[in-house]
Amino acid sequence: MTVPNTEDIRMRGFRERSTLEEAISAALDGVKALDTEPVPVTEAAGRVLAVDVVSEIDVPSFRRAMMDGYAVRAEDTYGASAYNPIPLRVVGSSMPGNPSDAPVASGTCVRIMTGAPIPDGADAVLKVEDTTPSKDLVEATAPVPVGRNAARIGEDVRIGDPVLPSGTVLLAQDIGILTAIAVDPVAVVRRPVVRIIVSGDELVPPGESPAGHRIVDSNSPMLATLVERDGGIPEIVRLPDERPAMAAALADDGADVIVTSGAASVGSEDRVPVLVAELGNLAVHGITMRPSAPTGIGTIRGVRTLILPGNPVACLAAYDFFAGPVIRTLGGRPPDWPYRAVTRVLSHRLVSQVGRTDYARVVVDGDTARPIAISGSSILSSVTGASGFVVVPAESEGYAEGTEVTIHCYRGDCAS
Amino acid sequence: MTVPNTEDIRMRGFRERSTLEEAISAALDGVKALDTEPVPVTEAAGRVLAVDVVSEIDVPSFRRAMMDGYAVRAEDTYGASAYNPIPLRVVGSSMPGNPSDAPVASGTCVRIMTGAPIPDGADAVLKVEDTTPSKDLVEATAPVPVGRNAARIGEDVRIGDPVLPSGTVLLAQDIGILTAIAVDPVAVVRRPVVRIIVSGDELVPPGESPAGHRIVDSNSPMLATLVERDGGIPEIVRLPDERPAMAAALADDGADVIVTSGAASVGSEDRVPVLVAELGNLAVHGITMRPSAPTGIGTIRGVRTLILPGNPVACLAAYDFFAGPVIRTLGGRPPDWPYRAVTRVLSHRLVSQVGRTDYARVVVDGDTARPIAISGSSILSSVTGASGFVVVPAESEGYAEGTEVTIHCYRGDCAS
Repeated sequence: MTVPNTEDIRMRGFRERSTLEEAISAALDGVKALDTEPVPVTEAAGRVLAVDVVSEIDVPSFRRAMMDGYAVRAEDTYGASAYNPIPLRVVGSSMPGNPSDAPVASGTCVRIMTGAPIPDGADAVLKVEDTTPSKDLVEATAPVPVGRNAARIGEDVRIGDPVLPSGTVLLAQDIGILTAIAVDPVAVVRRPVVRIIVSGDELVPPGESPAGHRIVDSNSPMLATLVERDGGIPEIVRLPDERPAMAAALADDGADVIVTSGAASVGSEDRVPVLVAELGNLAVHGITMRPSAPTGIGTIRGVRTLILPGNPVACLAAYDFFAGPVIRTLGGRPPDWPYRAVTRVLSHRLVSQVGRTDYARVVVDGDTARPIAISGSSILSSVTGASGFVVVPAESEGYAEGTEVTIHCYRGDCAS
Repeated sequence: MTVPNTEDIRMRGFRERSTLEEAISAALDGVKALDTEPVPVTEAAGRVLAVDVVSEIDVPSFRRAMMDGYAVRAEDTYGASAYNPIPLRVVGSSMPGNPSDAPVASGTCVRIMTGAPIPDGADAVLKVEDTTPSKDLVEATAPVPVGRNAARIGEDVRIGDPVLPSGTVLLAQDIGILTAIAVDPVAVVRRPVVRIIVSGDELVPPGESPAGHRIVDSNSPMLATLVERDGGIPEIVRLPDERPAMAAALADDGADVIVTSGAASVGSEDRVPVLVAELGNLAVHGITMRPSAPTGIGTIRGVRTLILPGNPVACLAAYDFFAGPVIRTLGGRPPDWPYRAVTRVLSHRLVSQVGRTDYARVVVDGDTARPIAISGSSILSSVTGASGFVVVPAESEGYAEGTEVTIHCYRGDCAS
């Protein structure tokens, strides 16, 4: 048996901890939206528009009936009333997609459905309620002015109309209008590829049961879910705590961001910060916050690299503070919290420590919020049981019972 | 040329319009969450948990170090100080995933890393800062009480702990904890299959340009996006306005909900309500609201069938009022609006009509909301340009400038 060198595990300590604000600045420094890629309009929902879209077509590209009735020359109906019905000869029929082949001459009309093209010669649609059928004639029982019930060319969207600005996160109705004006493919911001490197000899892959002295890697599926929520493409790399494998995964091409979890502290097995410093630049290591103090932020060959703690709650908090904003910014989205903020009154005191930012989980119950008392940051159930969290700034020693606080809500029911 | 029978297009009118509330009741009547299906935990994000999850394992399943240092018998360290260092012989090393094969006997210790298993015989972890290395010994320079820095079995989650309740929409941290307790597959509510039937001879498929007297089918991609947002699986069927094809699409097996768009009014080409009444039961046809008045609600062989208007804005509004709640309920989700509600003051008068519910689009600008003046409900740009909408109830004739209104926000920036 080899007696280990105790120097190996000597805590070197974080030489200089950064504040939360410094760390966020370091994470976002120089980060901007990625390049543009074309995607089919039917696959563009949720993507971020990369250009200002201006319509190149008129919608509709033809004059369209807005009521069921008869396409007429308006002047033919002037003076019509129930006491003075004016007969018009029906010379054709215009259905949506099936226009009339007959034009409308004076004294004639064309039967028309809502949405159908208005035939040449007609300048209004007499609605069906203002007519009486009579063999192959129809009698107008009311006049219709020029243009009535007739949508003009370009009524919905005109050539040259600005339709959607660059930066729009495409909703259902945006997909609708882009389809309608035949913008396909759509130029959107490329989704950032996020390499998630999880290391630890004690980890078994998700889906397996933890045998012996092992635990399941619960961080990689959690991080992958967060990355997808934020518009990124997760790429999971699970490694033993071995230096060459870690170095290769950090230096490999193809990622727009690297997120590591585990091996983030300063013990001998905590290789990641050392490797990041060797392979690139380690701007931040150690942050005055709880949890997530062992977080590191660096850059390897231009790729922002976020070293997240291995313990699940610290990993989640550090993702939300540092990785999420980077991934959203790369994807052309606002860096802001993806959580809805609500205001509630504390039902109990929320203790914090001056000089350290706290990420305090709370349970919202009606108008109040109750801090979750927890011993360690590794207790994932403190997050799954929480409605959301309160950020207690470094200069605060916490809040007294009854204080109004802002809660960032994990769940939709937080604000109900 | 055939002269059409004018009786064909005679507006029969909606025999009896339903109120919005009646229509919502009819849409949701008897609708409940679908059955359960197993999915791999790594694919369960965003799904709805169908069971109460109780842990069947302890996490961790072994005693785990919470600090880097030495696993010791606590009593060996009693009395230790910088002036009275107590030597302990290092007999092994315990790393995460690589436990020590040596137990800790009196006078010995095992070097240990955070997360590593605590060897037999040890009952505390002496942190590295409280030691001084000395050849193959280590000197304790402070005492450690029993249990300190040692996570007990089940500290995170214990066998029998309730972990997540049925009905939880699974977030990243939920996926994390389910993975950690080796719940795989996860029992979730099946996603409703939503058949989207779009009909119209004038429609060309999305991705094509509208030639001649045609328009692009912009409703099916819009509806598919909404269905996916609400947790459903869209299945698009695009048909000409032909009765046999429509009947077959309505009667086919395999859908949990049917949503049709187009051919919803009461003209001759508006076959869908007639077909629904023939094939099943048409509970509602015509609603006192604007837009979306021509909406119908029925049931065909137990499948709720929502007849949405063909014009895009009416289609969107009718989806949100009627189809969305049905799809979310089937999927085990709350039926409520999926939009964030904010309160703003109207910058201009918002006109409505007593006896009719209005879905009024507004633009939020700072503290105010401005109604979008629009002529027709077909103008999709009135929705893409809107921040959200105000629902003006049937008994109201609208709101004066300066009135505070609740806005349901389409976009994230609505409330910023």
